[in-house]
Amino acid sequence: MRIGIIGAGQLGRMLALAGYPLGLRFTFLDKTADTPGGQLAEIITGDFDDPALLKQLAEQCACLTFDWENVPVEPLKQLGHDVPIMPPLNALETGQDRLAEKQLFAELGIPTADYAAVNSLAELTEAAGKLGYPCLLKTRRMGYDGKGQHLLGSERDLAAAWEALGGNALILEQFVNFDYEVSQIAARSTQGETDYYPLARNAHKNGILHYSIAPWSEPQLESQARDFLGRMLEHFAYAGILTVEFFVCGKRLIANEMAPRVHNSGHWTIEGAHTSQFENHLRAILGLPLGDASARGHSAMLNLLGSMPVLPSLLQLPGLHVHDYGKSPRPLRKVGHCTLVCETASARDAGLQDLLGLAPSAAG
Amino acid sequence: MRIGIIGAGQLGRMLALAGYPLGLRFTFLDKTADTPGGQLAEIITGDFDDPALLKQLAEQCACLTFDWENVPVEPLKQLGHDVPIMPPLNALETGQDRLAEKQLFAELGIPTADYAAVNSLAELTEAAGKLGYPCLLKTRRMGYDGKGQHLLGSERDLAAAWEALGGNALILEQFVNFDYEVSQIAARSTQGETDYYPLARNAHKNGILHYSIAPWSEPQLESQARDFLGRMLEHFAYAGILTVEFFVCGKRLIANEMAPRVHNSGHWTIEGAHTSQFENHLRAILGLPLGDASARGHSAMLNLLGSMPVLPSLLQLPGLHVHDYGKSPRPLRKVGHCTLVCETASARDAGLQDLLGLAPSAAG
Repeated sequence: MRIGIIGAGQLGRMLALAGYPLGLRFTFLDKTADTPGGQLAEIITGDFDDPALLKQLAEQCACLTFDWENVPVEPLKQLGHDVPIMPPLNALETGQDRLAEKQLFAELGIPTADYAAVNSLAELTEAAGKLGYPCLLKTRRMGYDGKGQHLLGSERDLAAAWEALGGNALILEQFVNFDYEVSQIAARSTQGETDYYPLARNAHKNGILHYSIAPWSEPQLESQARDFLGRMLEHFAYAGILTVEFFVCGKRLIANEMAPRVHNSGHWTIEGAHTSQFENHLRAILGLPLGDASARGHSAMLNLLGSMPVLPSLLQLPGLHVHDYGKSPRPLRKVGHCTLVCETASARDAGLQDLLGLAPSAAG
Repeated sequence: MRIGIIGAGQLGRMLALAGYPLGLRFTFLDKTADTPGGQLAEIITGDFDDPALLKQLAEQCACLTFDWENVPVEPLKQLGHDVPIMPPLNALETGQDRLAEKQLFAELGIPTADYAAVNSLAELTEAAGKLGYPCLLKTRRMGYDGKGQHLLGSERDLAAAWEALGGNALILEQFVNFDYEVSQIAARSTQGETDYYPLARNAHKNGILHYSIAPWSEPQLESQARDFLGRMLEHFAYAGILTVEFFVCGKRLIANEMAPRVHNSGHWTIEGAHTSQFENHLRAILGLPLGDASARGHSAMLNLLGSMPVLPSLLQLPGLHVHDYGKSPRPLRKVGHCTLVCETASARDAGLQDLLGLAPSAAG
């Protein structure tokens, strides 16, 4: 059976690597051939919104999925019922718009920061007055890894932020003074079977995920997170992996954003869970039984940015698993990650410190 | 860095799947394109002994290896020093000839069954008289999975066995009335770093590996096996994975055969060891630090023969990992395997019984 993946980045690559053992085959669609996914599977090159290429992909494949949340939705809708597309397009569409996302969280009773849509400097000024400072002005669309965001410390920052982002559809969000961030990843199959990965704690640097540790043992937070994701899975009649990042404020969770796909904060599951998020995404969209999402040991996943460290220095660390995405170097580009799996949380924490000492430049 | 793999069967496929995360790329050489390896990497199609194709492969790649022990050695020797070829060709050559293999075992003080080379019915009759019945007449070359073998129960079987196999270079071996079979897998890097996987116990059916369980906790046997493999690694100045199958007779090991490559009895290491045999083969031939070869939990690996069972029936078993090689069905063909990983040996043993009940036909 052949699966079509729109977007051939590292997420697509890891989906293919997880799917080959199941006997699946893959065709990617992306702009250029020498992509992380295109290096190990068929690839159709061209634009994500080219109807002819999407049709060609659909004709070859039993099911389509995507590895990027900003894939244009309209051309996929035009494909109609030619081929199943999972996760569902209404989840993709919601995840592309911070305002729609916030409105959905609110509708489902999932706490978020206070927010307001803003379409002019006057609206921005008024909204900032209501929400208070500091607050965050963000583009509603296409923001990721901290891009398209401005932190407003006071009224004096309004004009510059508007200068930078005005003209885009924008949302102003109250700044959440959170303790730390966690991710909850869930899988739901087309058969309705649902499972949850252990909570992961995330640390960022320069607005980009730096490392995640899992399982993060906070049963009360995990129970809230699972409840919230369960509502979303039901709402969308979801199929595939769904990720939500939450701010932790004491014992409360505040939803930050959703991703209708496998997620960087779940890369630890390749070696650190019985079944990886990538394999479970494929099982879920194909209606196969889900694999055990529980943890094996205690993991830390560190992103490798810019360029890959030399392999021998990494591989000499016991229990470390290296993932090179086959990308050319570029400052702050995610070129790989590595995952440390240990028998105890304390060994993992000590190992992570060693790792951070070894690969500081690679990590940001 | 690009690795050339001669032979694009399931072993090559699993080498590529283990190597992609390290940032490696692969080109296979095999007779047809739609092979387990060719489905997920570049492939050059043609004969293994075609000098022009081997040269083309060598020019593209930083290192060559092979996934089949019967790759013709002479054409590889002709490549000379154009490209490193690992494991060393003298190990490949020895593993291709049961007589040379037995002579090496003897030279290194590794116990084997008594044997004699036979080149005529008269020599066969004489050798059988010396070794006693039952004994096994085997082709010296190209035998695998029980092919090219005749069991001789008495003098009356001599003529028929000679009829079937005469004309080939042959070896007659004393029949070893063993308790069971084990495999020892070792890794040695070009830097001389050496590590050993836990011993695995193998069960056969119709002369083909049926299942392996690991770790097989017999420290005295494991210690003997490691000692024996250590001698072989040193002898060959080996690089890569080396496997030796042993008969167990009480507390003694008797070497059956060597394979200078990753091995079916090591497939459990993908999920059941911290670093798989496939990843360590690549690390070893590239001179990278070896990964931890110790076990994670208790594993059972079951071969799937003929055709793949339907996926849902397999995937519903907790802790089971499925590997489909992308092959078309054929009676007794190895089309995939599955590995069960459990926290205890008793849970593994119980799970294996369930699995054998579920997939009996697939297993032979």
